[in-house]
Amino acid sequence: MEEFNEWISYRRNLINKNLELFLEKKNNHQKMIYDAMNYSVFAGGKRIRPILTLASYEIFDYNINIPMPFACAVEMIHTYSLIHDDLPSMDNDDFRRGKPSCHKKFGEDIAVLAGDALLNKAFEIIFDMNTNPKSNLENIFKAGKFLSFASGSEGMIGGQIVDLHHKKNNLEILKYMHIHKTGALINASCKIGGILGKANNKEFSSLDEFSKNLGLAFQVKDDILDTEGKNEEIGKPTGSDVENKKLTYVSLLGVEKAKKLEKELTEKSISSLDHFGSRGNHLKKLALSLLHRKN
Amino acid sequence: MEEFNEWISYRRNLINKNLELFLEKKNNHQKMIYDAMNYSVFAGGKRIRPILTLASYEIFDYNINIPMPFACAVEMIHTYSLIHDDLPSMDNDDFRRGKPSCHKKFGEDIAVLAGDALLNKAFEIIFDMNTNPKSNLENIFKAGKFLSFASGSEGMIGGQIVDLHHKKNNLEILKYMHIHKTGALINASCKIGGILGKANNKEFSSLDEFSKNLGLAFQVKDDILDTEGKNEEIGKPTGSDVENKKLTYVSLLGVEKAKKLEKELTEKSISSLDHFGSRGNHLKKLALSLLHRKN
Repeated sequence: MEEFNEWISYRRNLINKNLELFLEKKNNHQKMIYDAMNYSVFAGGKRIRPILTLASYEIFDYNINIPMPFACAVEMIHTYSLIHDDLPSMDNDDFRRGKPSCHKKFGEDIAVLAGDALLNKAFEIIFDMNTNPKSNLENIFKAGKFLSFASGSEGMIGGQIVDLHHKKNNLEILKYMHIHKTGALINASCKIGGILGKANNKEFSSLDEFSKNLGLAFQVKDDILDTEGKNEEIGKPTGSDVENKKLTYVSLLGVEKAKKLEKELTEKSISSLDHFGSRGNHLKKLALSLLHRKN
Repeated sequence: MEEFNEWISYRRNLINKNLELFLEKKNNHQKMIYDAMNYSVFAGGKRIRPILTLASYEIFDYNINIPMPFACAVEMIHTYSLIHDDLPSMDNDDFRRGKPSCHKKFGEDIAVLAGDALLNKAFEIIFDMNTNPKSNLENIFKAGKFLSFASGSEGMIGGQIVDLHHKKNNLEILKYMHIHKTGALINASCKIGGILGKANNKEFSSLDEFSKNLGLAFQVKDDILDTEGKNEEIGKPTGSDVENKKLTYVSLLGVEKAKKLEKELTEKSISSLDHFGSRGNHLKKLALSLLHRKN
């Protein structure tokens, strides 16, 4: 376990260092926008998605500098989506991870633009990857396609629209929403690692399967935490889903069945990595740590 | 002149057809977001930027299918920026090109997401360009870099921040703002055409020079139109810059000097195309038509 914690910390630090470099302002006119971008990117995120990208890549190769720009791009896109989701016209959340959300800290106009800028920056750093002679351009294209698809109208945004404007009165629509809103980016994070690591078809399918189930498990866990979690541990008022009368796995299935579902999904996700042998261990441990997380 | 108008119409129609194809919804859950994206993309834009991309490319090659995805991406990014700029927390404009702006028509949440989705879609279609066997991946990377840089915190967003939050009390800061807010995307539109057309260094520099001056001329013209234009012709209430006490080229230089400046910039921009001979004619005519536009 200690070895695994070190393994995680090492990658988290490296991701943070790279994010810092990518998010350095170039001149003083840009101070305000970079302050807002950095504030939200360094607001205490656990870097789950970029670590998934690195861990997926590491099944095939040790050189994590290769997928690093994509790992950072994934985290920037995740952060942009949180900033925009928190806006008054959307979920209207004043707090995020125990701190004022971006628009509370910088104003709504800056928050919209900081989100926009992070989304832009994510693609900008990918288009810079051709300067690395070890890069395989064809694979970067494929990975870029996974990323943009997952974050766009067929992915995250598609899920957010359903969340905001569709009646979610059955398991089918709830699943559709989560697969798109949360699942798509988790799925892309792993597929990107695989494609850059030159996974063959079978290996790629395993990562796809792993991350799809993990994404759903992750969301079911979120719903359970929202019901059970303590205020200070998840950093925003809990029970908000109940107050907003949002349909959740818990409200639909009850806590016990939701917990069972999450366990099943996690087990399913883990077993799809079996044929990687010990090379899949870090990814497996990551999945388990998400199942046991308290925030 | 008739030949030129036909030349423009042909390209505008082709761009519109391609935009339609790129903006087709894949399932009914996405209806709302695609409706909003299409509403703003087809709200009467003149397609100046994508035509600049095609025209720049056509100096070197006739096959405009090659730069077409980038031309559409440029227009999507332009549209996303208008949607977000119009938001209540930004410029708070209820009308755009004589129609209700996106948030007035669909609500603020959908407008934020429609802008996000267009930005995403722009990059998505670029990452799909590797499926065309005639594509040169290295050049697509460079073009993608120009585009993302121009639309991000070092480009458009950087300019918008200065517009919203900096004191603009001299020509220097006004120029900085416009070079970034309007100029960067016009500059990128032409550079993308050049790089995809495999321009050599000298040719590329000419396009760079041409589009930088054109971008500034374009903005000076905007300021003049805001002072002089008729309400129905530019599609939103005029004189708004005066009301908002915005610094403009007109307020800083007066109408006559602003007109002179615009003419000088346009002439400068046109003369940098001279060494292309007749191959530069369409681009030159485009620049002149922008000088003479009434909205």
